[in-house]
Amino acid sequence: MKITGKMLLGQSEQQGSYEKIYAINPVTGEQMAPVFRGGDQQQVEEACALADAAFDSYRCISAEQRAAFLEQIADNILALEDSLLERAMAETGLPRGRIEGERGRTIGQLRLFAGVVREGRGFFPRIDPALPERQPLPRSDLRQRHIPLGPVAVFGASNFPLAFSVAGGDTASALAAGAPVVVKAHSAHPGTSELVGRAIQLAVKQCQLHPGVFSLLYGSGTRVGTGLVNDARIKAVGFTGSRTGGTALMKAAFERPEPIPVYAEMSSANPVFLLPAALASDPVALATGFCGSLQAGAGQFCTNPGLVIAVDGQPLQQFIEECCALLSQSSSQTMLTSDIHQAYVRGVERMVQTVGVDVLSKGQCQTGPNQCQTVLLATSAETFFANKGLSEEVFGSCSLVVRCRDEEQMLKVAGELEGQLTTSVQCHDNEQEQLVSSLLKLCELKAGRVLFNGYPTGVEVCHAMVHGGPYPATSESRSTSVGTAAIQRFLRPVCYQDVPEKYLPVEIDSANTGELTRLVNGVLSCS
Amino acid sequence: MKITGKMLLGQSEQQGSYEKIYAINPVTGEQMAPVFRGGDQQQVEEACALADAAFDSYRCISAEQRAAFLEQIADNILALEDSLLERAMAETGLPRGRIEGERGRTIGQLRLFAGVVREGRGFFPRIDPALPERQPLPRSDLRQRHIPLGPVAVFGASNFPLAFSVAGGDTASALAAGAPVVVKAHSAHPGTSELVGRAIQLAVKQCQLHPGVFSLLYGSGTRVGTGLVNDARIKAVGFTGSRTGGTALMKAAFERPEPIPVYAEMSSANPVFLLPAALASDPVALATGFCGSLQAGAGQFCTNPGLVIAVDGQPLQQFIEECCALLSQSSSQTMLTSDIHQAYVRGVERMVQTVGVDVLSKGQCQTGPNQCQTVLLATSAETFFANKGLSEEVFGSCSLVVRCRDEEQMLKVAGELEGQLTTSVQCHDNEQEQLVSSLLKLCELKAGRVLFNGYPTGVEVCHAMVHGGPYPATSESRSTSVGTAAIQRFLRPVCYQDVPEKYLPVEIDSANTGELTRLVNGVLSCS
Repeated sequence: MKITGKMLLGQSEQQGSYEKIYAINPVTGEQMAPVFRGGDQQQVEEACALADAAFDSYRCISAEQRAAFLEQIADNILALEDSLLERAMAETGLPRGRIEGERGRTIGQLRLFAGVVREGRGFFPRIDPALPERQPLPRSDLRQRHIPLGPVAVFGASNFPLAFSVAGGDTASALAAGAPVVVKAHSAHPGTSELVGRAIQLAVKQCQLHPGVFSLLYGSGTRVGTGLVNDARIKAVGFTGSRTGGTALMKAAFERPEPIPVYAEMSSANPVFLLPAALASDPVALATGFCGSLQAGAGQFCTNPGLVIAVDGQPLQQFIEECCALLSQSSSQTMLTSDIHQAYVRGVERMVQTVGVDVLSKGQCQTGPNQCQTVLLATSAETFFANKGLSEEVFGSCSLVVRCRDEEQMLKVAGELEGQLTTSVQCHDNEQEQLVSSLLKLCELKAGRVLFNGYPTGVEVCHAMVHGGPYPATSESRSTSVGTAAIQRFLRPVCYQDVPEKYLPVEIDSANTGELTRLVNGVLSCS
Repeated sequence: MKITGKMLLGQSEQQGSYEKIYAINPVTGEQMAPVFRGGDQQQVEEACALADAAFDSYRCISAEQRAAFLEQIADNILALEDSLLERAMAETGLPRGRIEGERGRTIGQLRLFAGVVREGRGFFPRIDPALPERQPLPRSDLRQRHIPLGPVAVFGASNFPLAFSVAGGDTASALAAGAPVVVKAHSAHPGTSELVGRAIQLAVKQCQLHPGVFSLLYGSGTRVGTGLVNDARIKAVGFTGSRTGGTALMKAAFERPEPIPVYAEMSSANPVFLLPAALASDPVALATGFCGSLQAGAGQFCTNPGLVIAVDGQPLQQFIEECCALLSQSSSQTMLTSDIHQAYVRGVERMVQTVGVDVLSKGQCQTGPNQCQTVLLATSAETFFANKGLSEEVFGSCSLVVRCRDEEQMLKVAGELEGQLTTSVQCHDNEQEQLVSSLLKLCELKAGRVLFNGYPTGVEVCHAMVHGGPYPATSESRSTSVGTAAIQRFLRPVCYQDVPEKYLPVEIDSANTGELTRLVNGVLSCS
């Protein structure tokens, strides 16, 4: 499929009129053809008007139709074959294996959401039947289902050109919820975005849906992005990116005449606690696992382990020495964009220049642009407490070891953390149980996911996943952006009181036409 | 039980140091003893510190203990007997039957939440067991449960001295979720608030819970209220009141270093659509039902029907004439407070002075303070479209009939409504089905509850209820403040990955000790 540089407005395509956007191969620094151009205000409005026009029909198609549409998107993405893989590799500098894996995840989550929609799993409509004889007053017939909020604006993420971009988790869950989607592509991979956008556009046509179900825009966050968030027809926002970007969108959404929810996944240092028995038992294995997680994808994951917290002493020293041995031999990796690389360099510099922070090890540095040279730092808990900046994410392979005086101080570090996507605990069977319990209780208050004896990178797309967490990890700790519960972000409950049978939506009709499991009088029922 | 005028800070009591607050009998205008005093900043902080200190133990008590606590509160409120009823009647001017009914609802919802907590209904923990053999990568063991956000600030509502005040729906659902609560009493009924507060305080002691689980403060919304919302230890807010008050709290909560959710139930005009066949069939019965709903409790309900929308013509004229006959004979009723009465008078004045609005009927007006004299107004759809203010709630018995040229214009009115708590449809069997379907689709987009052939006042507390709706009806359309789903406002999901069995919370242990229905691999399971 040819990449044209044009935006997709429903079934039509249009050249933007604003700034020129070129994909840049981060490995070579070279511009790639074609030129893309940012959308103007009129094009933003056109996309929103299309989404709004599509909303009523799209939200009312059958579950089967919606599921088939999601599956068609998956098929169409697969059909792009090497053209997609090669463009994505060129635009991101990521290796083929990673891009193939990400394509698998992208397709897998589209199909997973199709299953959720088709089987109605995880929705649980509620029915409290009428009690006409109840004293002193009869009870009406009350039935609750969920409906989509309205059109959703999705911001493509820089670090997942497929799985969190045009047809990524936000788009898949919004479409699954019954919401039309307007995507603002990330300028780091516009060609990949166009290819995937055309796969969705084609699926809309193949499934004979309203053309406004999907549009794709290019342009800057401050103009096209803010334009989308400010448009009255947009009713929710999905975003993965920086804290600065996320909080700006939150502010714009809050200041609208009608505020709307922004699901922004922003930043996380993903602390890893090394408990004493685990550390004493096998510091070498811990170091190997940790360095693997730290360096995966040049550390460009939301869940990159940016903090290591342990009681100081000989076992920690052994862990550090092993890490240094591994890291000092490791090759640098090409980062996604020049902006990300520059932010990484500035972030490392900020950490290194903090008094009391020592550089433990640095990886090799190849020639060529945008190289991420892994850095491992260390500091004392006292210095960590005194410098709030040390707990802030540096996006890339950079981690800070916080040396604690004792277990109590380690718990204090846990208690003072800000909100995180994940907290990890390395824990041996022989660990002091009271310590583990106390730490777990702190960890669950600080994060959306707590994991034991593993590392936080690698987020499973499943039913139980929570990729979220307290602010500032996300804007909305009650939600997840990964896993089937992500669909709930775009839904709200409506209660139907004494609505005649012939007008009842299928999810809550008396015959249970949808064959759903429902909460009847508060008890689960399949009939 | 004696009313002392003191605030309840955990198990202690303290006199406030700020402004004097007296309960005023709205029927007589007389001040009632004792004097209450607003809390100072230190007392706000003390209450928040207590709630914060209580959080860790309270969130971890067993479901059975939490349920027993809610039931103990209900028992203690009942044990207050006539002292509570009489004080509430004197402070609100509401008749005994209403206060008794409200006490029943208050106790009923505490017990309903106890059942939800005890049986774990409506939570649905999720488990995706490990798949160690999966290719290309094994899957970890992933388990999701919900935990409370943290201490909750609850604002007592003026219009429900029991059911939406100190031990009302917000408090009951927050306590059920495992969140300590700090209540700011509404100054309209401080004595009722103290009595109920002491019933909760006693239950905390009887159940041997951390004393900080509950505190009760008096004082102004701008000082004590904002003080609570700004306190870093408060993690969510429940509020029922005016749009001005609600949006001020939203702003304060958003501007915190860590923004928190505000569940504000603010205002709604609760439009009632009279469809042609229904109107032609029995305009007299419709008028009787409507006037009853309009005048219940002097119209001081969030769901008071403030708009009537119908196609103009002889049937509508008959409906109006019957309403006028009923209303012109109706006695005025005492409103809750002088402030509410003054706002009502101003609101009616604002409507009446809008060019194109006619007064159809006014009720009788007795002597005595704070009399709500029912008003029925009418206007054309054109005037309604041209004057946004006409769609705004007037709190009290005031309603506006919007005369539409035809069905199409009636649908246009529906489409232009702002967010509502409810929309009602009076619908005969012989109604044109296409019209009903179109209207229902518009209504569900505008409101949290759509009801047929009934009136919106009278909110059932059950599983399927939604008392919420799009902004500005509430700050958060994805939630309900009434019914068992209200508990979800104060919870967030946490995923536990590979956490060893001995550290797993009971909701997600492998033995299913809690005997819960759980989503295992996406399928409901009781084992």
